[in-house]
Amino acid sequence: MAPQLDGYFQQVDSLSDAFIERLRQAVAIPSVSSEAARRPDVVRMGEFLAAELKKLGASVELRPLGKQHGTDLDLPPVVLARYGSDKNKRTILVYGHYDVQPAEKSDGWDTEPFELTIKGDGRMQGRGSTDDKGPVLGWLNAIEAHQAAGIDFPVNLLMCFEGMEEYGSDGLDDLVNEEGKKYFADADAVCISDNYWLGTEKPCLTYGLRGCNYYSIEVSGPGADLHSGVFGGTAQEPMTDLVRVMASLVDTDGKILIPGIAEQVAPVTADEEGLYDGIAFTMETLHDSLGSKTTIFEDKKPTLMARWRYPSLSLHGIEGAFSAPGAKTVIPAKVIGKFSIRTVPNMEIDQTNEVVCRYVEDVFKKLGSKNSLKVYPQHCGKWWVASPNHWNFTAAAKATERVWGVQPDFTREGGSIPITLTFEQATGKNVLLLPMGSSTDGAHSINEKLDKRNYIEGIKLLGAYLHYVAEEPMN
Amino acid sequence: MAPQLDGYFQQVDSLSDAFIERLRQAVAIPSVSSEAARRPDVVRMGEFLAAELKKLGASVELRPLGKQHGTDLDLPPVVLARYGSDKNKRTILVYGHYDVQPAEKSDGWDTEPFELTIKGDGRMQGRGSTDDKGPVLGWLNAIEAHQAAGIDFPVNLLMCFEGMEEYGSDGLDDLVNEEGKKYFADADAVCISDNYWLGTEKPCLTYGLRGCNYYSIEVSGPGADLHSGVFGGTAQEPMTDLVRVMASLVDTDGKILIPGIAEQVAPVTADEEGLYDGIAFTMETLHDSLGSKTTIFEDKKPTLMARWRYPSLSLHGIEGAFSAPGAKTVIPAKVIGKFSIRTVPNMEIDQTNEVVCRYVEDVFKKLGSKNSLKVYPQHCGKWWVASPNHWNFTAAAKATERVWGVQPDFTREGGSIPITLTFEQATGKNVLLLPMGSSTDGAHSINEKLDKRNYIEGIKLLGAYLHYVAEEPMN
Ligand SMILES: [Zn+2]
Ligand SMILES: [Zn+2]
Repeated sequence: MAPQLDGYFQQVDSLSDAFIERLRQAVAIPSVSSEAARRPDVVRMGEFLAAELKKLGASVELRPLGKQHGTDLDLPPVVLARYGSDKNKRTILVYGHYDVQPAEKSDGWDTEPFELTIKGDGRMQGRGSTDDKGPVLGWLNAIEAHQAAGIDFPVNLLMCFEGMEEYGSDGLDDLVNEEGKKYFADADAVCISDNYWLGTEKPCLTYGLRGCNYYSIEVSGPGADLHSGVFGGTAQEPMTDLVRVMASLVDTDGKILIPGIAEQVAPVTADEEGLYDGIAFTMETLHDSLGSKTTIFEDKKPTLMARWRYPSLSLHGIEGAFSAPGAKTVIPAKVIGKFSIRTVPNMEIDQTNEVVCRYVEDVFKKLGSKNSLKVYPQHCGKWWVASPNHWNFTAAAKATERVWGVQPDFTREGGSIPITLTFEQATGKNVLLLPMGSSTDGAHSINEKLDKRNYIEGIKLLGAYLHYVAEEPMN
Repeated sequence: MAPQLDGYFQQVDSLSDAFIERLRQAVAIPSVSSEAARRPDVVRMGEFLAAELKKLGASVELRPLGKQHGTDLDLPPVVLARYGSDKNKRTILVYGHYDVQPAEKSDGWDTEPFELTIKGDGRMQGRGSTDDKGPVLGWLNAIEAHQAAGIDFPVNLLMCFEGMEEYGSDGLDDLVNEEGKKYFADADAVCISDNYWLGTEKPCLTYGLRGCNYYSIEVSGPGADLHSGVFGGTAQEPMTDLVRVMASLVDTDGKILIPGIAEQVAPVTADEEGLYDGIAFTMETLHDSLGSKTTIFEDKKPTLMARWRYPSLSLHGIEGAFSAPGAKTVIPAKVIGKFSIRTVPNMEIDQTNEVVCRYVEDVFKKLGSKNSLKVYPQHCGKWWVASPNHWNFTAAAKATERVWGVQPDFTREGGSIPITLTFEQATGKNVLLLPMGSSTDGAHSINEKLDKRNYIEGIKLLGAYLHYVAEEPMN
C-alpha cells in the first residue's frame, strides 16, 4: 500500500536542510501573541506562512478576526488555505498555530530564544520550534516534498493556522463554527499536530484531552496598599485570607478538596483497567521531563490515570501581591489568586463552576473576615474524547508504523486544546491529534526544542498519513 | 521661656512661600533609591541638599558609602553637615532621608508624583513631600528663618541625611557607628523627624518602634516551570506546598500561629493599662487612613496595643509564581513566599528566627512533600524603646505646646526605623522621634502629601524644639 511513499521519504531527506532553514526563518519571527508590542511580529508570521503557501501553489486567505477582546488591538489573521480541490480525493482539514509563548534570554535560556540553534545531538532549540511552528511547517514541507518527488498529492488539504492559540484563541471559535459548513464543508476528517509523544521514543496518536476551568479569587479590603509597620496587627489583610482560601483547595498529593468534583468523574471501566500497562511510558521519562523525582505516584498506571482521566487542580499565582525579588513590607490591598482545574469526562463546566465558587465562598465565610471576596471563572474549555477506532486513526496508525516501524500508542493528554472540540462540533467529523515532538521538548518552558529526527521523520509521518487516510475504507 | 520664638515664628510665616518652593524643587528630583536607573537622581538630590546647606553657612561633606551590596552601583552619599560649633551650646544631631519610594502616575496618582501640587485645602501632594523631604527641609528652613529674624541659633546642629532609607539604609549603620565618637562626638541628644502623628489633629512625640524580621520561604521541586495540563495531578507542586505553609502562619484576626512568639512579649503592666485611653486616636481616623472598615478590633485600646506593643505577621507576596493580570496555566518550579514579623519588647531576633524557621520546617514536614524547602530571615531589625521622661522629650513637649497649643501624646509606632536604635547605640544619647506629617499623608502610597499647615507649623516646631532643648535642665 501507498508504494509512492518511498520516493516521498527520499525527497524529505534530500530537502531536510531546506526544511530546517524554513523553521529557522519561522523561529526568527518573535510571534508572541500575549504581548501587544509583539503583535506586528505575529502578523508578520502569518504573512510569512501565507507567502510560503502561495509559493507552493495553495490558495490562501488571511482572514481578519476583528479586535482583541476588551482592547483596540487587531487580532492576528487566521491563515486559511486550500491545496487541491479534486472531487475524487478525500479532503483533510489540518490545524496549527503560528504564535508562540513569551521568551526572553533572561528567563534562563542557554541560547537566544528566537534564533534556532542546532546542537550536536540534533537538538533544534528555539521558541516555537516544537510548539507549533515545526508541525505547522510540516504540512508545507510535505507538499513541497511531494512536488519535488513528482508524486500526486493524495488528498485535498484544507489548512487553518491561527495566531492567538497561546493567548486563548480569541475569535477562532466563531470562525471555525461559521466555516464548518462553508470553507471547511468538504472536510472528511480533521488532523491537529500540536501535542507531544508521551515519552521520547515511541510515537502516539491522541484521542482525548482534559478540559480546563480557570478561576480567579479576588480578596480586597483596604483602599490602597498599606505599610505593614503601621497597619500590621490592626487590619485584616486580604493576602492572609486569600492564602488560607487557596490552601483549602488541594493538598500536596494533588487531592482536590472541593466536594462535588470527584463525584462527576466517570468510573474506571474493566476495559480501561487493562489499557495502561501497554503504554510506552516510564517513570524515568517523567522524571526527565519533570527535572526532578517530585512525583505524586511511584508507578506508571496511577500516574497516567492522574494525567489523563482524573481532574487536577493547580495554583498558578497571585496578582497584586509583592512578586519581585528582595523584600518589601507591603500589605497588598487587593490580591487575586489564580488556579485552574483540569476537567475530564463526565464533568460539566457549569456544575464544576458552581461547586468551586460555592466552596470558595464557604471557606471564606468561615474565616470570619470583613474583607470582600469575589470568585469567578476566567475561562472554561471542555474536555474532549474521540473514537480511536475511526478510519482517521487507523490511517495514522499505519503511517506511524511505516515511518517509525512501530505501532503507536493510543493516548490521551492531560492538557487542553479547546479548539479540538470546536472542530469536531463544527465539522461533525472525527478529529485526530498527531504529534510530532516528544515529551522533553519543553513547549512552554525555557530552552524549547524540537529534535531534528522528530522534525524530519515527522514530515514523513504527516505525508504518509495523508496517503493512508486517502485509501482507508470508511468505518 | 524662649521669648525669641515669636520673631522666629513670624519669619517662618513670612518665608513660607520660599519654603514651599524649596520643597517643590526637592520633590521634582525623583530620588528613588530602589531603582538603579534613578541613582543619578538620588545623587543629585544629595547635592541639592548640600548646596542649600552651604548657602545657609553650614559646613557640609558628601560622604561616599562605597558600592551597593551585591552590585557595582555606587551608593548615594550621606550628607553630613554642621551648623555652629559653639562649645557653650548644646549640640543636637538630626537625621532624615532624601530618597523616596518609587512612584509612577500609572500607579493611580491623580497628579504627577514628582511635581508638588498644592490643592485648595492646602494639601501639598507629591512623592517625598512628607517622607521625608518635608521634614529634612524643615531643619534647613529653621536655620534660614533664624538668620532672617536675626536670632542667634540656640544649638550646634549636626545633620545626617541619607539617600538609601527606602531601600534598606545600605551602608549607613557602619557610618553611624564609626562617626558616633567622631563626627557625632559632641552630640547631646538625637532627633529624627521621619514618622507621623497618630491622627490628623494632635501632635505626638514617639518613644518606641517595633522591629521587623523579614523572612523568605523557598519551595522548589521541578527543574523548570511546568504546564499544568501535562503535569497537573502527577507532580507535587511547590506552589501548593508554599501556600499551605503560608496559611499556617497567621489567621484572619492577625493571631500569629507560631508557638514561641507570644511567649517572648513583655507583659502589660498596670501603668501601661491606663496609658491608651488618653491618646488622641479614634477608630474613625484609622478607618480613614485604611480606606475601609476592615479592622481586626472595634476599639481604640486593643487597636493601639496591636500596633505598638504586640507583634504582627504580614504575608507580602510570592516570587516566582504567575503574578500578571490574565490567565497562565503554569506550575511554577520554584516559589518564594515573603512574610515579616513586627517585633516588640522583649523579643530577641535570634530566638524569633529560631522558632519561626523550626515551625515552618515542621509544617512543611507534615505535608509529606518531596519538594525542597528553605526558610531564612532576609533581614532583621530590632525594636526600640526610649525613655519619654528624658529632657530631650520634655523640651520637645514644651515646643509642641508652644506651637500647637496642646500637650503632645507620647506614642509608640508600629513601623520600624532601624537607624533609630543605631543612633542610640552609636552615640549613647537619647533619641527622640518628632513627626511633622499626619496619619493620612500616605507615605508609601499613591497621592502622598504633606499638608501646608503641618509643613509650616512643623518648621516652627523644629526651631522651637531647638530653643527648648538648649535650655532644658539635664535629668
Ligand atoms: Zn501549541
Ligand atoms: Zn521615611
